[in-house]
Amino acid sequence: MSGTVPSEVKHGESGRRAVVLLSGGLDSATVLAMARRDGFACHALSVDYGQRHLGELACAARVAQAVGAVDHKVIRVDLRAIGGSALTADIAVPHHSSVAEIGGDIPVTYVPARNLVFLSLALAHAEALGACDLFLGVNAVDYSGYPDCRPEFIRAFERTANLATREGVLGRPFAIRTPIISMSKAEIIRAGVSLGVNYALTTSCYDPAADGAACGTCDACLLRRQGFVEAGAPDPTRYAVTRTGRRP
Amino acid sequence: MSGTVPSEVKHGESGRRAVVLLSGGLDSATVLAMARRDGFACHALSVDYGQRHLGELACAARVAQAVGAVDHKVIRVDLRAIGGSALTADIAVPHHSSVAEIGGDIPVTYVPARNLVFLSLALAHAEALGACDLFLGVNAVDYSGYPDCRPEFIRAFERTANLATREGVLGRPFAIRTPIISMSKAEIIRAGVSLGVNYALTTSCYDPAADGAACGTCDACLLRRQGFVEAGAPDPTRYAVTRTGRRP
Repeated sequence: MSGTVPSEVKHGESGRRAVVLLSGGLDSATVLAMARRDGFACHALSVDYGQRHLGELACAARVAQAVGAVDHKVIRVDLRAIGGSALTADIAVPHHSSVAEIGGDIPVTYVPARNLVFLSLALAHAEALGACDLFLGVNAVDYSGYPDCRPEFIRAFERTANLATREGVLGRPFAIRTPIISMSKAEIIRAGVSLGVNYALTTSCYDPAADGAACGTCDACLLRRQGFVEAGAPDPTRYAVTRTGRRP
Repeated sequence: MSGTVPSEVKHGESGRRAVVLLSGGLDSATVLAMARRDGFACHALSVDYGQRHLGELACAARVAQAVGAVDHKVIRVDLRAIGGSALTADIAVPHHSSVAEIGGDIPVTYVPARNLVFLSLALAHAEALGACDLFLGVNAVDYSGYPDCRPEFIRAFERTANLATREGVLGRPFAIRTPIISMSKAEIIRAGVSLGVNYALTTSCYDPAADGAACGTCDACLLRRQGFVEAGAPDPTRYAVTRTGRRP
């Protein structure tokens, strides 16, 4: 189909096609490695949505290359024009001293309808490519806070996707695959390490320093650090020196 | 909330807030007029998705102003990077000599997951604005061909929206309003005329001339022309001269 051929084919393609949403973070890198292990020809998709730190997208590109995606597409959608989140507007990212301090409410880093927007774009990409499988790195740790990481949202989206699209209507349904949804961060890291994922290529921090070093104290950093500790795996994250002159 | 205040307030705002998806076409202009009639403070939203003719967006801006939207936001998302449609890739738009020639299959002008992407962005905008109502101009004539114009898709999306978002989870559900979904084109035009909609400000053509004149023979033009005839209303559309030197 004209206009749908990947412009940069980085690896030979074989196997059933899948679209894998890749954020540059630890979770989606692991999911990409799992999809590769399961024999999928993976078309990685990242969204440049006006996030605070474009370093995420550079990480996603490196992960796509390292883990062996067929190609890596970046779609731009300006969620800063919408705002409403600490990740897309001038709202401060909260910092804590430990995971225990993270509250149970939906945090200010929630971006309105973000996973719905991302999945919709991934679905469009999948339909144009002829892929029926979409992989998304939502997980158990996230869904305590973010509504769009819960299994009931994923199931509802899958149903909607198959009513929204030509392929769904023609009886070639899409499957939304969330292989780490019920895993802890430590389990995810162990799985990724066993698949050879190089987590030094990934970034999780919501509030990195200008040189890309992780803050160590936002919710994402705290959960990631604790995950490496619990997994008994070395943490390759480069942390910034804190205001007190010590690394967190 | 920082970052969510409309930058261009064109009209005083009163009433319950709603987001209205505005394409620049006849249907969504009518829906905006209906939402205004029903007392909503309407935040119009258009999507610059890489469509063939940016004239649509200029029409949407004029309609928003004329019908009295509080503001009009344009969000960019590059669906051309995805392709897969005559509206976003190098695939020819089909032309016919009458409505009877339009086939029953999903046409090549179908854009993968377009209404799902648009509704997801409208939902994000609504949540950031504190609006619970989303208006969309899908209608009965469209849903013979496009899967994402059918009532079952709209219902599934609404359910998904209320699982995807903070507001939905906190018990302030979103409603997806499709007031023209079961109306014919003629009924829509009659309703719009009675509400004072100036259809000369709108465009429907999939394949306009360089000067913006409508082709008169794409599916959208044929349905629009027939609608004006059946409504007994003057058709204000400016049509291009055809290859044979006659207006269609």
